[in-house]
Amino acid sequence: MGKKRILVTNDDGIFAPGLKALVNVARDFGEVIVVAPNSPQSGTGHAITINQPLRIHRIETFQGIEAYECSGTPVDCVKLAKNILLKGRPVDLCLSGINHGSNASINIIYSGTLSAAMEASLELIPSIGFSLLDYSFDADFSASEEYVREIVAQAIHNGIQDCKLLNVNIPKLPKEQLRGIRMCRQCEGRWDEEYQESKDPRGESYYWLTGKFIEQNAMEGTDIWALNNGYISIVPSGHDLTAYKALHNNDHFHRDSSDIGVHVSLPGPR
Amino acid sequence: MGKKRILVTNDDGIFAPGLKALVNVARDFGEVIVVAPNSPQSGTGHAITINQPLRIHRIETFQGIEAYECSGTPVDCVKLAKNILLKGRPVDLCLSGINHGSNASINIIYSGTLSAAMEASLELIPSIGFSLLDYSFDADFSASEEYVREIVAQAIHNGIQDCKLLNVNIPKLPKEQLRGIRMCRQCEGRWDEEYQESKDPRGESYYWLTGKFIEQNAMEGTDIWALNNGYISIVPSGHDLTAYKALHNNDHFHRDSSDIGVHVSLPGPR
Repeated sequence: MGKKRILVTNDDGIFAPGLKALVNVARDFGEVIVVAPNSPQSGTGHAITINQPLRIHRIETFQGIEAYECSGTPVDCVKLAKNILLKGRPVDLCLSGINHGSNASINIIYSGTLSAAMEASLELIPSIGFSLLDYSFDADFSASEEYVREIVAQAIHNGIQDCKLLNVNIPKLPKEQLRGIRMCRQCEGRWDEEYQESKDPRGESYYWLTGKFIEQNAMEGTDIWALNNGYISIVPSGHDLTAYKALHNNDHFHRDSSDIGVHVSLPGPR
Repeated sequence: MGKKRILVTNDDGIFAPGLKALVNVARDFGEVIVVAPNSPQSGTGHAITINQPLRIHRIETFQGIEAYECSGTPVDCVKLAKNILLKGRPVDLCLSGINHGSNASINIIYSGTLSAAMEASLELIPSIGFSLLDYSFDADFSASEEYVREIVAQAIHNGIQDCKLLNVNIPKLPKEQLRGIRMCRQCEGRWDEEYQESKDPRGESYYWLTGKFIEQNAMEGTDIWALNNGYISIVPSGHDLTAYKALHNNDHFHRDSSDIGVHVSLPGPR
C-alpha cells in the first residue's frame, strides 16, 4: 500500500496540545499536512466564513511537516486545504482533533472538530474526529495514544464501511483503565443551560454561556454508555438529517395550489 | 385553542425583510417574541458563542411586538430567548427565517437559520425554518405568503408528527407558478467551491469563498426535485447523525484492551 496523504485539523487552534498528539500519530502513516485555525474555535459548529476574506500563513510548528494557520473556522480550514493548499494533491484521510473535551451525543452538532471532519467527508474523504473527555489545556493525550493509532491504522488498511465519518470519543482514564473500543450509536442528550449575567466596566449588562450536559437514555449501544463504562466510543456518522419516520405521517402539510385558491399557470414547455 | 407564544428568529439579522415577512405571518397566530442577530450571520451553522459575552437590546422595530437584537449567532439567540428573555414563559412554536437563499439539501448543515430552528427543536419546541430561493436583500416574500401561513397553521392546529423540525424551502416563482407543498427527503448535494484570491492594500494575500451548489440524485421525493418542479419542499428533520448501516459493518474497529496488550485494572467496585 502506497504512502498516504493525511490532512490534520482541529478546532482548538494550531497550538493546542491535542493537535500535536494527533500529528504525532498521523506522521507514522504517511505525508501529513496540517491546516488549523489560528485561534480557538470551539463551538463554531459547521460555520463557514462568507462575509470576509480569509488569511493563511505557513508555519514551522511541526518539525518536517507542511503546516498552515488560518484565520477562519475549522470548516474553512478544510475547504482552503482542498481548494488552495492541496489543489491537485488528493487526500486519503482527514483527522480532526484531538479535541479538548467531549463531542459525544448531540455535541457533534456544536463541534468545530467534528464539523471539520464532516466537511471532509462531504468531499468523500474518509474522516475521523477525535475527542478526549478532558477540557483542560494540559489534558493527557498519552493514555489513549495506542488506541488512536489503532483506529487510524484500521481506517487506512481496512477502510470505513458504509460511511465516511467516525466520531471517536475517549474517556478521561489512565491507560490501564481503558477497556477497549466499541462501535456505538449517538446517544440522546441535551444541555441544561444557564447564563452568567454581569455588568461590564461601563455598567452594561452581558451574558456568558455556561451549562451542563444531560445524557438521556444512555443505554448499552450508545456512545455515552460506552464512555461511562471505560470504552472508547466510535459513532459512524452521516449528514442526512431527514426524519424518515416523520416523512410519511405529516400529510396535513401536503397542499396543491388549488387548495390555496390559486390557478397555476406554468410557463411554456418545461 | 388558547393563544400561542411564538419565538421568531433568523440568520440574516434583525433588519432583514425576510424576518419582517415571517413576523407578519406569525402575529396572526398569537403572541410573538423576536430575538435575532444584530448583524448578518449566514453560514454560521450551529455555532455558539462560548469565549465571549453576549449582549441583548430591546428594540422597537416591529410595532406592538417584543423584539430584541443580540450580538451572538442564531443559536445563541434561541438559547438566550429560552434561558433569559422568556424564562418561565413557555414557547409553543419557533419560526426561523424567512432566509434569503436556499437551505435545501445539504445546506441545512451550514445554515444559521436552520440551526436556530434545530436548537429550539432540541428543547422540544416544534420548529420551522423557512427559506426562499432568492439571495437578494430585496427578495419578494409575498408570492409564498399564503403557503407560509398555511404551514404555520397546520403546525399549530395539527402538530408535527414524529419530529420537531421542518426545513421549508420555497422556489423563487410568482404566486401563479407555485404548484403546492410536498413532504420530501433531503437531497444529496455538494458545493463545488473556489476561492477568489487577491491582495489587500498592504499586499497581503487573501482568499474569499465562492462556489456553486451541485445537486446529486435529485429524483422525485427529494427536496431539490420538488423545488425544481415548482413545489415548496418540507423536509422533516432530526439530529441523530448515526449512520446506522455503518454501525454493523465496521467490526474491524472493535478492540478489547487485551488486543492493545494492556491488562485492565478497574478501580474498586463500580
